[in-house]
Amino acid sequence: VPAFESVIEAFEGFCDADPTYCAQLAVHVGGERLLDLSQGMEKDALLPVFSSSKGASAVVISLLVERRQLDLDATVASYWPEFAQKGKGAVTVRQLLSHQAGLNGVDGGFTTEELLAHEPLAERLAAQRPLWHPGAGVEYHAVTLGTLADELVRRIDGRTLADVLSQDVTTPRGVDIFMGTPESQDHRVLEALPPTSEELAAFLANPTAGVDLAGGGGRLASLSLPSGGIFDLFARVNSVAFRRVGPPAAGMTATARGLAALYACLRHEIGGQPPLLGDETIAQMSQMQVSGKELSSGLQVRFGIMFQVPCSPRWPFGSFRAFGHDGAGGSLAFYDPVHEIGFGYTVQRLPLPGGLDARAVELSRLVREAL
Amino acid sequence: VPAFESVIEAFEGFCDADPTYCAQLAVHVGGERLLDLSQGMEKDALLPVFSSSKGASAVVISLLVERRQLDLDATVASYWPEFAQKGKGAVTVRQLLSHQAGLNGVDGGFTTEELLAHEPLAERLAAQRPLWHPGAGVEYHAVTLGTLADELVRRIDGRTLADVLSQDVTTPRGVDIFMGTPESQDHRVLEALPPTSEELAAFLANPTAGVDLAGGGGRLASLSLPSGGIFDLFARVNSVAFRRVGPPAAGMTATARGLAALYACLRHEIGGQPPLLGDETIAQMSQMQVSGKELSSGLQVRFGIMFQVPCSPRWPFGSFRAFGHDGAGGSLAFYDPVHEIGFGYTVQRLPLPGGLDARAVELSRLVREAL
Amino acid sequence: VPAFESVIEAFEGFCDADPTYCAQLAVHVGGERLLDLSQGMEKDALLPVFSSSKGASAVVISLLVERRQLDLDATVASYWPEFAQKGKGAVTVRQLLSHQAGLNGVDGGFTTEELLAHEPLAERLAAQRPLWHPGAGVEYHAVTLGTLADELVRRIDGRTLADVLSQDVTTPRGVDIFMGTPESQDHRVLEALPPTSEELAAFLANPTAGVDLAGGGGRLASLSLPSGGIFDLFARVNSVAFRRVGPPAAGMTATARGLAALYACLRHEIGGQPPLLGDETIAQMSQMQVSGKELSSGLQVRFGIMFQVPCSPRWPFGSFRAFGHDGAGGSLAFYDPVHEIGFGYTVQRLPLPGGLDARAVELSRLVREAL
Repeated sequence: VPAFESVIEAFEGFCDADPTYCAQLAVHVGGERLLDLSQGMEKDALLPVFSSSKGASAVVISLLVERRQLDLDATVASYWPEFAQKGKGAVTVRQLLSHQAGLNGVDGGFTTEELLAHEPLAERLAAQRPLWHPGAGVEYHAVTLGTLADELVRRIDGRTLADVLSQDVTTPRGVDIFMGTPESQDHRVLEALPPTSEELAAFLANPTAGVDLAGGGGRLASLSLPSGGIFDLFARVNSVAFRRVGPPAAGMTATARGLAALYACLRHEIGGQPPLLGDETIAQMSQMQVSGKELSSGLQVRFGIMFQVPCSPRWPFGSFRAFGHDGAGGSLAFYDPVHEIGFGYTVQRLPLPGGLDARAVELSRLVREAL
Repeated sequence: VPAFESVIEAFEGFCDADPTYCAQLAVHVGGERLLDLSQGMEKDALLPVFSSSKGASAVVISLLVERRQLDLDATVASYWPEFAQKGKGAVTVRQLLSHQAGLNGVDGGFTTEELLAHEPLAERLAAQRPLWHPGAGVEYHAVTLGTLADELVRRIDGRTLADVLSQDVTTPRGVDIFMGTPESQDHRVLEALPPTSEELAAFLANPTAGVDLAGGGGRLASLSLPSGGIFDLFARVNSVAFRRVGPPAAGMTATARGLAALYACLRHEIGGQPPLLGDETIAQMSQMQVSGKELSSGLQVRFGIMFQVPCSPRWPFGSFRAFGHDGAGGSLAFYDPVHEIGFGYTVQRLPLPGGLDARAVELSRLVREAL
Repeated sequence: VPAFESVIEAFEGFCDADPTYCAQLAVHVGGERLLDLSQGMEKDALLPVFSSSKGASAVVISLLVERRQLDLDATVASYWPEFAQKGKGAVTVRQLLSHQAGLNGVDGGFTTEELLAHEPLAERLAAQRPLWHPGAGVEYHAVTLGTLADELVRRIDGRTLADVLSQDVTTPRGVDIFMGTPESQDHRVLEALPPTSEELAAFLANPTAGVDLAGGGGRLASLSLPSGGIFDLFARVNSVAFRRVGPPAAGMTATARGLAALYACLRHEIGGQPPLLGDETIAQMSQMQVSGKELSSGLQVRFGIMFQVPCSPRWPFGSFRAFGHDGAGGSLAFYDPVHEIGFGYTVQRLPLPGGLDARAVELSRLVREAL
């Protein structure tokens, strides 16, 4: 068993700098959980993990690839005929699921209600002309990626993405994540906390280039969010209605234990169940599909199939073989085949400017060093 | 009617900083012209607008798309068989008209005479091996893009691009632009003025990376211009011979009124004529096709089909839905569907280093703010 | 005959700044060698030229194109059926030979022994899933590019790449380079010298982003090298075993005379033999195929088919029509059609951080100025 003292020390030290720090950290190596820490909250508290949900959605897509039900090089329209509208007949699953198809939003914007109901947003995406020529650029599909993946799963499997996740992945293995949190778990759910007013003022004084946080309008990035904008979305994530549905892009609640186990179970025995995926499927899903600057923000991104893959300085969370996903609330979860690390991290207070908490990256570095 | 005081104030203020400032500004909102200003020149004076001509050429291409005569995903060779030479058989209209096909020039350079005669340059472009593998990069086709578009129009419609523009677009609507300025209009034409010698000295002391202004030689950008180089081109633009032909890439004369009306008439009734295009065609033409750094200069560019589309910091003239074109002489013209703005701006004295006049960008910002 | 005084003066001056400077410079203009200089070593001394070997490999590929035996747009698998494994069935020769196919290394790394034996590494490359989706990025295939090209040549011609080079190119023309240095030439071979310990310390204190010089591990760039890492490779390059085989990516020994003649003979009569290639083939091989930032290092690269093509600030060695290759030991060789320059440069002591010696670039600039 490796010595994780440096990781433990760092994790505990974060509350010296920030007394409000509440977080969980869990680390698997192979099938075994070797680290299980929390601070300021219970180890079994469930937190909204925002886009770390996309990692779980990617696991369901992986399962369809493993079962040879989904071919990444097929056109989306071969599974979802209505998708062929407005010049999208040749768009491949590969392009769609790596943020390259120009469907980060729809003309006129969409509402949270359309997102939660699924079909209305899926239909509008099928009828949408891509916001750029597919393949000509990359832009994070913050919300719609989940709806697009969900519709693909529904067309192929007949069940919803969330049902496949629960029935085929998490329930049999006791993986503690919920895409659609049942009432029975509500007592464990903590609210994601907004940034402090000082943090918010500093953030708003220095907005990220090209990002219109108010939503709507003529900026590409603003189309990625429901019409209320990002602060409305943050508020809704804490609502019962939102977590009960659990949209696949950003609606999951999870413990760090659950996130670590989700990635560990891909290649290792968890809960007495065999590994979920073969190495071939993992290689296909984690293969880098695009590397570039996001059209709206100019920030570096690198995606596999739905998964983020590491890149500096944006997402330096592992070896170039690693894959995972962060969340706007600060969470991080990934698998790194080089050391067989399954990593889960949650944090209650959203670190600005959103996305990957730098403390999570530091912890992941110390874990690799210890191995 | 919105209050455009801030726009008027800014426009009039520009001559405090620059007493030689001579410019026109016209703004349509929907089908109505709400601003019509000039300074140091008449409102009906015609100026050479350099590459803002490409916007008018793009309108003719749009018309062929609207009429289903041109399919952007077809190969160029399907309309123009000779184009298939030297590895160009698979080049699509989409690539060709978004500066990606490697035809910004021809081996050995070309003369202004070949440009004005059209066929000699078109034949040489058909026989040219792309200067990079099509799709592997983007470089502004400053002059040849007009010849390439013109040849496509001639092959499909039978008329020249300029004739289609005049007969089907501008004459019926009274849009005051001329691709090929007739003798009857010569009395209204002003000369584009070169930069002052101080400006020129400062510019030459700090040349844009990779740009060889003298023309010829071994630099990619220098191949984009006729053999005399850019200063010869600037001189020729003022000649009767040049404006009588009016090459579609850079040979138009226009008023700001005409430029604003050109864009307004695409979606609105102008001169008693119905809108020229359906929203579907506009969406296809203005869809971003490429975003990247120009091979020679490293400057950011973003193109739709022939149209420039906004990008920061290079061309921040509107929402991401906007489309238009600037000119080396400083002109700017665009349409922005978000506020239904048709914008036209001309300026007599070329602002260095050429291209979009920063004052035009500021005016466009104030117009959006007022709406 | 042009006056090359400035070149000679600069070349001789380099030893004022660096008394250990040992180098050769040869320049052809057309078929004639107009410069033939050396300093601190004999003009007929052979030095390991590292990746300048790739330029000679590219010449053999050019010969197959000239002979219409190889179509750059064909799939690799059409010549090498086993290559179709793991999602590589659609990879084209064009992608493969321009560092875009994701085969800079193999899972688990490879040994120098596998490289020298050829077949073991070729088989592993055929069985490898691309390290990124082919076309989604560019990364220098420092070692494997030679093996990949060699296997293509073997499948098409029946002979090894080195045999085609020797029998069809260098021996008939007396071009003094050796891909596989015979015992008879050993007396002329000098060792490439490692950097001094001061240089090495400075270099290691400031490693290039993303490059793991120790080899192995989870970094993409480290997979490009044999398992011993770059310093082991540098040591082996001086071994008899390595130079006797002469791997096509990096195993050649050459004089500057030989390098200059290699490029000159492509278009000019050398040793009484006709030019090796037609202009069409040269245009195809030197056409830029990719321009971008290397995935691991973020450094700018620009490649034709196997050849480097000039880009600033990385490889500013000629006009945009030029093509050639540098070597990690500091060598540079290229052809520039604008002045018909065949350029060869070798240097004994490796300039850090490796790759193109800045002095070679300066000499190439002075040569162009003199013409």
